[in-house]
Amino acid sequence: MSPQEIVEAFIAAWNRGDAPAAFGMMAEDVVWHNIPMEPAVGIAGCQALMAGFPPIEGTEWIVHHIAANGNVVLTERTDKFLIGGRWRAIRVSGTFEINAEGKIAHWRDYFDMLEFQREFA
Amino acid sequence: MSPQEIVEAFIAAWNRGDAPAAFGMMAEDVVWHNIPMEPAVGIAGCQALMAGFPPIEGTEWIVHHIAANGNVVLTERTDKFLIGGRWRAIRVSGTFEINAEGKIAHWRDYFDMLEFQREFA
Repeated sequence: MSPQEIVEAFIAAWNRGDAPAAFGMMAEDVVWHNIPMEPAVGIAGCQALMAGFPPIEGTEWIVHHIAANGNVVLTERTDKFLIGGRWRAIRVSGTFEINAEGKIAHWRDYFDMLEFQREFA
Repeated sequence: MSPQEIVEAFIAAWNRGDAPAAFGMMAEDVVWHNIPMEPAVGIAGCQALMAGFPPIEGTEWIVHHIAANGNVVLTERTDKFLIGGRWRAIRVSGTFEINAEGKIAHWRDYFDMLEFQREFA
């Protein structure tokens, strides 16, 4: 798979609620940085960060635009989460860096923290 | 110029302080949307938005990653502004859409509003 296809498969895994498949696409030493927050390091660190979110009943990440340059893939998205029976939407732009093994080594998402807090409240 | 080259030239214009050149690369009906704020519409609207910022003494936008897909160009940047003798830095991810005339028709920047307010204070 190309770097872009890897990112598309990663987002598709989240969208079908398959967290094990999504985490399995990460490098062991992955760094997941939601830019307004502290980065999570390693798959276990990412799982711990995810576990701190409210229970997610559904996921729909809409990719508006995606483009690759070498091993780097940039995305413009709206990430929707079903929580407590209500859909929440965050406008996000995020970068993925794919390593030589085809795993996600870096993931950086840019968004407005106030929008995140308002939507997840 | 390719869409990516147009965006690189646009950023280079800002970085040399040449606002007229930068505005000249925009479509008349450009939409500039700093996602946490209301969008600015038209070149005059963008100029008015820019005029509302504190006086900028220097600009250095660092492009960490850039990738194009057709007429859409995605960027991951750190935008630095010299204001009141002190450099301020905003971490940004932004999308540019280039129209058939080679002008910037849409520009959307994603960043954390709290970081923006803290840096520009």
